[in-house]
Amino acid sequence: MLTLVALQHLYNQTNHSNMRRQERVIIESVYPQLNCGEFFIKRVVNESVTVYADILPDGHDVIQAELLIQHESKKKPKDIRMQHQGNDVYFETFKVTQQGFYTYQLRAWVDYALNWQHGIEAKIKDGQHVVSELLDGVQYLNHIRKKGNKGEKEYIKTLIGYFENETEYQNAIQEAVSEKLHELFIKYPERILANTTKEFKVYVDRKKANFSTWYEFFPRSSALEPGKHGTFKDCERLLPKIAKMGFDTLYFPPIHPIGEKNRKGKNNTVDAQEGDSGVPWAIGSKHGGHKSIHSELGTEADFKALVGKAADLGMEVAMDIAFQAAPDHPYLSSNPEWFRKRPDGTIQYAENPPKKYQDIVNFYFENKAYKALWEELLSVVMHWADLGIKMFRVDNPHTKPYYFWNWLIHEVKKKHPDTLFLAEAFSRPKVMQQLAKQGFSQSYTYFTWRVSKGELIEYLTELTQTDMKEYYRPNFWPNTPDINPYHLQGANEAMHLIRYALAATLSGNLGIYGPVFEYMVTEPFPNKEEYLDCEKYEIRHWDWSHENKITHLISKINGIRKENAALQQTNNLRFCHIENENLMAFYKWDDDRANQLLMVISLDSHNSQQGMVQLPMAELGISPGDGLHLRDLITQNDYQWYDEWNFIELSPALPFHIFQLNQ
Amino acid sequence: MLTLVALQHLYNQTNHSNMRRQERVIIESVYPQLNCGEFFIKRVVNESVTVYADILPDGHDVIQAELLIQHESKKKPKDIRMQHQGNDVYFETFKVTQQGFYTYQLRAWVDYALNWQHGIEAKIKDGQHVVSELLDGVQYLNHIRKKGNKGEKEYIKTLIGYFENETEYQNAIQEAVSEKLHELFIKYPERILANTTKEFKVYVDRKKANFSTWYEFFPRSSALEPGKHGTFKDCERLLPKIAKMGFDTLYFPPIHPIGEKNRKGKNNTVDAQEGDSGVPWAIGSKHGGHKSIHSELGTEADFKALVGKAADLGMEVAMDIAFQAAPDHPYLSSNPEWFRKRPDGTIQYAENPPKKYQDIVNFYFENKAYKALWEELLSVVMHWADLGIKMFRVDNPHTKPYYFWNWLIHEVKKKHPDTLFLAEAFSRPKVMQQLAKQGFSQSYTYFTWRVSKGELIEYLTELTQTDMKEYYRPNFWPNTPDINPYHLQGANEAMHLIRYALAATLSGNLGIYGPVFEYMVTEPFPNKEEYLDCEKYEIRHWDWSHENKITHLISKINGIRKENAALQQTNNLRFCHIENENLMAFYKWDDDRANQLLMVISLDSHNSQQGMVQLPMAELGISPGDGLHLRDLITQNDYQWYDEWNFIELSPALPFHIFQLNQ
Repeated sequence: MLTLVALQHLYNQTNHSNMRRQERVIIESVYPQLNCGEFFIKRVVNESVTVYADILPDGHDVIQAELLIQHESKKKPKDIRMQHQGNDVYFETFKVTQQGFYTYQLRAWVDYALNWQHGIEAKIKDGQHVVSELLDGVQYLNHIRKKGNKGEKEYIKTLIGYFENETEYQNAIQEAVSEKLHELFIKYPERILANTTKEFKVYVDRKKANFSTWYEFFPRSSALEPGKHGTFKDCERLLPKIAKMGFDTLYFPPIHPIGEKNRKGKNNTVDAQEGDSGVPWAIGSKHGGHKSIHSELGTEADFKALVGKAADLGMEVAMDIAFQAAPDHPYLSSNPEWFRKRPDGTIQYAENPPKKYQDIVNFYFENKAYKALWEELLSVVMHWADLGIKMFRVDNPHTKPYYFWNWLIHEVKKKHPDTLFLAEAFSRPKVMQQLAKQGFSQSYTYFTWRVSKGELIEYLTELTQTDMKEYYRPNFWPNTPDINPYHLQGANEAMHLIRYALAATLSGNLGIYGPVFEYMVTEPFPNKEEYLDCEKYEIRHWDWSHENKITHLISKINGIRKENAALQQTNNLRFCHIENENLMAFYKWDDDRANQLLMVISLDSHNSQQGMVQLPMAELGISPGDGLHLRDLITQNDYQWYDEWNFIELSPALPFHIFQLNQ
Repeated sequence: MLTLVALQHLYNQTNHSNMRRQERVIIESVYPQLNCGEFFIKRVVNESVTVYADILPDGHDVIQAELLIQHESKKKPKDIRMQHQGNDVYFETFKVTQQGFYTYQLRAWVDYALNWQHGIEAKIKDGQHVVSELLDGVQYLNHIRKKGNKGEKEYIKTLIGYFENETEYQNAIQEAVSEKLHELFIKYPERILANTTKEFKVYVDRKKANFSTWYEFFPRSSALEPGKHGTFKDCERLLPKIAKMGFDTLYFPPIHPIGEKNRKGKNNTVDAQEGDSGVPWAIGSKHGGHKSIHSELGTEADFKALVGKAADLGMEVAMDIAFQAAPDHPYLSSNPEWFRKRPDGTIQYAENPPKKYQDIVNFYFENKAYKALWEELLSVVMHWADLGIKMFRVDNPHTKPYYFWNWLIHEVKKKHPDTLFLAEAFSRPKVMQQLAKQGFSQSYTYFTWRVSKGELIEYLTELTQTDMKEYYRPNFWPNTPDINPYHLQGANEAMHLIRYALAATLSGNLGIYGPVFEYMVTEPFPNKEEYLDCEKYEIRHWDWSHENKITHLISKINGIRKENAALQQTNNLRFCHIENENLMAFYKWDDDRANQLLMVISLDSHNSQQGMVQLPMAELGISPGDGLHLRDLITQNDYQWYDEWNFIELSPALPFHIFQLNQ
């Protein structure tokens, strides 16, 4: 709850008219801020925030500005003095080292002590006699005398002696302009009539929010023998292989009892045949709902065992949150008020007229009992979070109210701050942005459909160079069970490698839906961007032991991601000129530029491509003629470049370079 | 004072976390808004405001959005439905017809009735049987039955009969999707779970805030005979000539008693000689202060008479507000607490170390008794406002606190809403912008120093295409008593015409310091951008009856400004391509495009210049081959153009065209 002081502050911020405020320094255009501070910006542990603001006094007096930084666990803020960049812009950077909320607030004041020193210095240089000015300065010395340590007090006492005694004039004017006194004024400011902004917030996640590598598969397709329903035990068998490919997140579609009423059949047919296994997202049956486990997969104990074994191999399990019910979900009888009735008293199935989805019933968020519904849905997430699950992929969040997600995510993270939520919304830009602002930790993106160089550069520029970089953490998926994009349908090995390399080097977070991706199972449902015989509707059988060039290169790339901090984030990205529309080049770096990479990726899966790439010399801090050492991290080949423009050739056999740069 | 409701609203706006809000529609990125609504935007009477916002629901339901517009004199807001532009952007325009504050607020909701109609329409087209859907719709009909007029109630009653009776199915499905029903749903919305933004403000001034033509002169230089101190009576003699030149605002430097202590001499020398008349901005002596009149100019009655005679000729008198005191101003003895003392008890003169301004004492706004000081300074403006003065040019407002101006301007306008304040700050960009945001009606600009085509286009683009257009009303001055810009020093007639034509056609507000401008008195103080023998420090004598080409063309241009609404505002401006760096072309129009002008101005005061100018065909709504009639409003020559690119030649004899365009 906001305090009265905070309300008063809001009042001050929003209604200056007709008030008599004596402050002289204006602070405005604080950056970063989202929707006037309504939303927090996001960081992960050990990232930094650089705050900018326009800060200006009336007249020409010397001002000081500072940032007040406070982690929610602390009782008091830390203050850091800001630097003047020019044109009345002040800035300063702080590092966030703890998870949770930080606030940043700006404060600025006319610094009369510094102003006095600035003035007397100009007069002394001008040869003026400054006896009166020295006496004037004694008030500022007295302030330090009250605040300083013993040595400082002694020094100030001496100065006051000089200032008040004309025989000490030479000493006085020397000390009046001394750097030592200047530093004491900086150290012990008198913040007279200081102006203070509202508090802005940063939410700090664990590092995985920025850097995660997801592998999605259907556990029911994990059986060793064809025709069998895979189990969590079967999944345990696959863990070493997936770990070897370098994935750190195993994401399972829903593992709950599947509705039996109006169940769908293979290839999304309306009526299931005997033996059809149904759609995992049609959750709930007489066997249980969102807190239960589909019995053919195993027990909750089996699931916990799987989660533990995955953890031993460095992998987390991500669950799917799909807030919707099959018509036979227990909620329909226990809490019919959470669903919309038709005039005839029957339940309203999901629909997008004229389409009907009779295997799904949506929650009715406008119902009067919505608070109980919200609490129940929260308890679903809490059930799995309490069990140790820290990552959730949320299905279709854009069809539930934004404020609901804001509340739910906030509540979960209060108890389980490590929890991360990936928003599965492939919707309009502002809808996807809004979900991220309201609190989702990661978001699916349009990368799945961005194919040409122009499209990729435009989209990445939006993600990394606009306000989106403050709150939208992209997760790049070349494919998903819902999307078999046209460019992958019938695509060759090179195209799969290109899409994986792009996702893995452009974005800190990525994922694939396997094993169809690495096994190149690309046959589409006719005329759709969907898979034929998709696992959403049936169990498939795979030879999971099979390895191929794609699995090897995925292992290689994911290994490189683990060793190179530049790839463990998304925003430090600059595209480099390369004079070929089929070649993309970009430079990435970690925050302290200890790790710098240059990627060159061909977009042509059929032909070799050549081009001259321009090094970002200024950013690299080198000049033409300086040697730059490049190691291709895939082939371990070494190169030495001396020029700004350098020749590159890539063939479909290995359509990308990941160069590590060293001066 | 903000109400508790408003505070609660602020709370809602700033802290969504952890709240359970059931609203489903998000409204954000409201434009225009300044500093998150802290400041009002500005308009003049009969201008319009187009509001844009991102408005989006979760899911795919039909939403409605509206603007709530309320003038401060009204008890209730008017609501106007907004239009969808695409990409979740909604917009609508409203016209402001009264002076004073308007508020605009946005409200949006999921419209369940329209959503129902949208759904049933899709199902009917799909051939589905919609009996249940018709019954579902009765609830929405019942809402209209409560709200509608008699005829509407009848219609709805019939519909309910159809909807509930299967034998009327054909009639039911026909009426369910009817335009008539659609319009009733629009007319009588049920705003369920509507979301509402905070209130944003527009302040509406009288038209003169946008369109004014200032003539500044020193009344003490108005005497008929050399060596005499001019009087208000002398000024009366000049009125017809100035009116004939087309000016509507006479601006006088301060007319108050001039300090006698530490008075400055001619050309800013430190010590005045016997007979030196002093600087009008060094206000106050034993003869009075800011509410008194310098006796050599006349009496207050004379001043009132002059103001009245000017009004008869369509001219207002603008006074100078210079909040500073000469050392012998009565305030220094009546209210010494308003000034800063030195340690020796003497008064602190103005200084900008190492420079000292011993003829000026600044007010000490940090003093504890600041409220009384503010009240006194307000009473100064009120004194003259009560006497009928409605325009004030404020001297150096950037050396007094911003919040002081905010308060003072607001207080004056509460009583005298016609009052306009011009901020004389030639300072850093953000300082000048801040003063405008805090409430100044007009502002001086950098136009005085923008000479090249590139500079002018860049600066005008900033003024008219950024947020500045919402709050910063430029007033373009080719010269002032403080600034004799280098390009006018020794400049010829053509250069004077160019600078006047640029100011008068680019900006709705402009002014010159005369008669030095039109008489081309350009001799500088050596090596400075100042005038030699400047009237700030001495009385000059002019042959006011002299007319020349410049006075004639000023009359002509000002006459054109009065007849062409396109020139009575600043923001409707598009630069046109013209392939010559010495030629500028731009298109201006009034809000309903009834008046459209094309200006072509040469920047070369010595040579003829030729070039091809490109017409803004799309904005003019014409195609190549369509005839466009142009009348040069200076020469009355007529042209007929058929092409997009057209030849222009301008010579120093008449270095500009002002074309009126007619299809």
